[in-house]
Amino acid sequence: MAKPEQPAPRPPEPGVVAAIVAEVYAHCRADTSGELADYIPELAAAQPDSFALCLATADGRIYGTGDTTTAFTIQSISKPFTYALALADRGPEAVAQRIDVEPSGEAFNEISLDPVTERPRNPMINAGAITAASLISGHNAKERFQRILDCYSRFAGRGLTMNEAVYASESRTGYRNRAIGYMLRSFGIIDSDPDEAVDRYFRQCSVEITCHDLAIMAATLANNGVNPGTGARALTAALTEQVLSVMTTCGMYNAAGDWVSTVGMPAKSGVGGGILAVLPGQIGIAVYSPRLDPHGNSVRGVAACRELSKRLELHFLHVTRAAQATIRSEYAVSDVPSRLRRSPQDLALLAEHGRRARVYELHGDLLFAGAERAVRVIEAQAGRLVALVVDLRRVGEVSAIAVRMLDALQRELAATGCRVALVDPDGKLGHNVSSLDPTDPRGRVFIDRDTATEWCEDIVLDQFRPIDQPPCTSLALPDHPALAALSPADRTRLTERFEIRTVARGEVIAERGSGRSGLYLILSGRVRITFEGADSREHRLVSLTAGMSFGEMPMLIGSPFVNEVRAETQVRVAVLSPDRFDRLTEHEPQLKLALMERLAAGAYAQMDAAVRAIAVRGADY
Amino acid sequence: MAKPEQPAPRPPEPGVVAAIVAEVYAHCRADTSGELADYIPELAAAQPDSFALCLATADGRIYGTGDTTTAFTIQSISKPFTYALALADRGPEAVAQRIDVEPSGEAFNEISLDPVTERPRNPMINAGAITAASLISGHNAKERFQRILDCYSRFAGRGLTMNEAVYASESRTGYRNRAIGYMLRSFGIIDSDPDEAVDRYFRQCSVEITCHDLAIMAATLANNGVNPGTGARALTAALTEQVLSVMTTCGMYNAAGDWVSTVGMPAKSGVGGGILAVLPGQIGIAVYSPRLDPHGNSVRGVAACRELSKRLELHFLHVTRAAQATIRSEYAVSDVPSRLRRSPQDLALLAEHGRRARVYELHGDLLFAGAERAVRVIEAQAGRLVALVVDLRRVGEVSAIAVRMLDALQRELAATGCRVALVDPDGKLGHNVSSLDPTDPRGRVFIDRDTATEWCEDIVLDQFRPIDQPPCTSLALPDHPALAALSPADRTRLTERFEIRTVARGEVIAERGSGRSGLYLILSGRVRITFEGADSREHRLVSLTAGMSFGEMPMLIGSPFVNEVRAETQVRVAVLSPDRFDRLTEHEPQLKLALMERLAAGAYAQMDAAVRAIAVRGADY
Repeated sequence: MAKPEQPAPRPPEPGVVAAIVAEVYAHCRADTSGELADYIPELAAAQPDSFALCLATADGRIYGTGDTTTAFTIQSISKPFTYALALADRGPEAVAQRIDVEPSGEAFNEISLDPVTERPRNPMINAGAITAASLISGHNAKERFQRILDCYSRFAGRGLTMNEAVYASESRTGYRNRAIGYMLRSFGIIDSDPDEAVDRYFRQCSVEITCHDLAIMAATLANNGVNPGTGARALTAALTEQVLSVMTTCGMYNAAGDWVSTVGMPAKSGVGGGILAVLPGQIGIAVYSPRLDPHGNSVRGVAACRELSKRLELHFLHVTRAAQATIRSEYAVSDVPSRLRRSPQDLALLAEHGRRARVYELHGDLLFAGAERAVRVIEAQAGRLVALVVDLRRVGEVSAIAVRMLDALQRELAATGCRVALVDPDGKLGHNVSSLDPTDPRGRVFIDRDTATEWCEDIVLDQFRPIDQPPCTSLALPDHPALAALSPADRTRLTERFEIRTVARGEVIAERGSGRSGLYLILSGRVRITFEGADSREHRLVSLTAGMSFGEMPMLIGSPFVNEVRAETQVRVAVLSPDRFDRLTEHEPQLKLALMERLAAGAYAQMDAAVRAIAVRGADY
Repeated sequence: MAKPEQPAPRPPEPGVVAAIVAEVYAHCRADTSGELADYIPELAAAQPDSFALCLATADGRIYGTGDTTTAFTIQSISKPFTYALALADRGPEAVAQRIDVEPSGEAFNEISLDPVTERPRNPMINAGAITAASLISGHNAKERFQRILDCYSRFAGRGLTMNEAVYASESRTGYRNRAIGYMLRSFGIIDSDPDEAVDRYFRQCSVEITCHDLAIMAATLANNGVNPGTGARALTAALTEQVLSVMTTCGMYNAAGDWVSTVGMPAKSGVGGGILAVLPGQIGIAVYSPRLDPHGNSVRGVAACRELSKRLELHFLHVTRAAQATIRSEYAVSDVPSRLRRSPQDLALLAEHGRRARVYELHGDLLFAGAERAVRVIEAQAGRLVALVVDLRRVGEVSAIAVRMLDALQRELAATGCRVALVDPDGKLGHNVSSLDPTDPRGRVFIDRDTATEWCEDIVLDQFRPIDQPPCTSLALPDHPALAALSPADRTRLTERFEIRTVARGEVIAERGSGRSGLYLILSGRVRITFEGADSREHRLVSLTAGMSFGEMPMLIGSPFVNEVRAETQVRVAVLSPDRFDRLTEHEPQLKLALMERLAAGAYAQMDAAVRAIAVRGADY
């Protein structure tokens, strides 16, 4: 190999994590033991003290130190990637018929098959790797190798090339691998030209990468097979799991047990001096340092992986408590009411019976253990509930088993007469808002928790409202609660100043930013006050119904409407114009005071509900 | 073995998860292949079609089906537990000098050592297990075995006993194991009486358990070494990781690679018919069915583990997105202000400069990958910030590396002049509220986010408040904003009706539930209004300062105080008594209206702030 150019040392990256990586680098750099691979002169020509360490996160941030852009040949680290392509090309069953997945306990270049299965013991020894190379699809040898190169390039996120000198040298001296090729052909494991498969294997081993490339390849495996830099999928999730499984038991030759104990990450090394290690879902690690230990693994590479695993606690069996964190919050609907402001009668009913409907906010990934916990908590309450909300908006990955479990839970609850409102705007469970019939006994899908809560409140009210107290949906102006404290004479005098107006459904009554336009008392229908959230979407601040009022604040202090007011249904309102409202101060100050006291009572009730909601959700608002 | 009593079949458990376990049970029950172990008559006497399946969560919920209370002998499943006790007794280094951790590729009862290391290849083959048994501490043989029994019992959560008949039979026929014992003695791996070690090994294999016991033992390993039923620690977390590592590579004899690929859980089986499998942090699985395959593993046990792994997606390399979920929410302090109500001048300053201080709410477990992400996000903003809040209350496990990283981040930020408020009431980072000096440049520790936010707001105000606009801390009654709209003559008439009162720090001004006691205008000092949360702790609803008012609502509508009002500092207030307030309606209705309009403006500002906070935190309030 041509003596690689040594780039000028880069200044250390700033930042907490870069500092940790630099520390580990300095710690491992001190060890100058080990020897270069020398079976071909090109490998022996590497800079012996060259050293690079890269840590890449599953979302693609790379922390690198040292000679991260020095090129070296991938060698045996190619094996899991060609195996991956063979699995994708032929399917796991067909590949398994030719390559086993058991640790060998033998040398990596043994010219023998398992005596019982008559197959190579695994794809990480040469016999298995050459078999994998023979299984790559393509019309001819050139295309087959090009597909390997394209595959590696997808993992690395850039177009990789082969080092011709290393390939020529490997090809010239690779008698042992040719022997393995012919042995494989004689046992029928390879059923094509063995020379072609061995030649392809030499070529794949000669692909040039840098430590930076290798880190991205590791991060792609950590990220479920998707390259976090390019966003392109290099391998399916299921095959990524399979490749990582084989790396776990067979990746580090005869030191698999020790590697699992002390490092605890699927890994692969090559005699070019590279090591790749993967903490699934989290981290990819790449090291390059060409001095090798007697096993053929990079001395500093092994040390750096151990050190990183120890310092950063990266062992894949390290226990977390993720399963316990599924239910983010749970409470009765009466504790955090919907933003439909209810009448005093309905509020009293909800205060009494609102515990029959509960909200469960889930978060994190919904794998089996998390779903089990959520289902268990909900089932424990089930007999007592008539409705419940499951809010899935904060949930990340939802496994197929979690979908099945929540589906089964809904059916189980339906049998007890309890309906479920799923808050699932992204359709994580596979239903969308319109896919469930409104009369489906299992429940409905909503895009926000507020309307889901309102739906549950309605179910509670339907069940517990006395038949002789139907909900008040319409009233005459003199019966409006804002006028309740007035004497009959005062009330008559005041009602005469109001004008009755009918507003069509969907019509805007007051625009955001518009000036004071009157004091509005609702006689029938529903009015919705909305605000624009940080997400630039409209959110409901509150819905108001017959017996409630709006527009007081602009009337009192002359400020514009901060929120839009719109008719949710056809609405009848009684309006006291700004003119008449102002003139009251002069002509009927006591009447106006009495009116304002009633309006204040309404505002007070609203504040009280807000405080209660804060209290329930802890000091967390 | 005495023919075990068959308890009457229990009715199936209700519930979603129990139904899944029952389905897998039914699926695997169909397979009646395999043979009973028959090397001693006691094992051959088991009910061949006996079958039990238990799934236990890491927090101790057990789902069981079938013959879950049928007793059987633990056999080789004892090996990881005795190995665990040896590790605890002697330390990992001393044990490693006698037992390696590499997969053997040989039969479990091979009478040989690794030719290179001259040690048993791992603790899951008989040679390694007998060596582990020889390493148990104790004054005599009886005590040593009792310590093993006590150890297993801690894992199972009940006192286990030995089956004497099985032991007698094993002891009578165990020539091969005796040969292994003498071989170990001849190589100096055992340096005590080999007969005693082999006898102890026979005894440990004869300990009787049920499938239910085995599930709890598995759950204890899944739960980091703590028995979730009893709460007792059976093994340290570090040794649990080590035992699970060895089970991963060596637990299933020669099928380790296939097991990792298709099941993906550390596991151990025994010829008694049991299998134990562990998904760290989440799930323990136990199966009992005595028909064995040619490897000596329970046929239905292997099938049930595969089926559960496939259906429930339990593979330990299954990728989750936990690392991406660390930052639960982040926003500027101006978006979600503290509950100290600020003066209009300060509000204007915070509106302009509040983005120089941010809040980061973290959640989930803070392992390396999660901490990396949090640190990266914060570092990206660092140069622009003068203060920030890191809220750790929702964080679960905090790894040592995460503590170090946050510590380094604080030092890094301090160097740029940015101070950090940690909300960490439980001292997860090892600081407590008083351990950091208030003048420490790195920042302070708080018990809630509200006071941490207030501290950050103060830092912003200190930096950006013009020198010629000192904060208003005290005012005379005529300058109180509530009276601002009045004509000088009206103001004089009204101020005469107020009484000035001084309240000592800590004194209660209005108790929760007390009646209307006056309209209070604050002239100097701070008043705190608190409510009792669902957690039964006092929370601040709001703090008020000079220029603000309280008590309006009870005055207007005659309701009692719902929240306690207390002097945070010495306070001067001007009080308008209920009597005088009421008489205003009659004598000065227009003056009263003007006053109320000003008070409404204050309430309006508060509502507006609440709406803004809701908008920022999405539709999530």
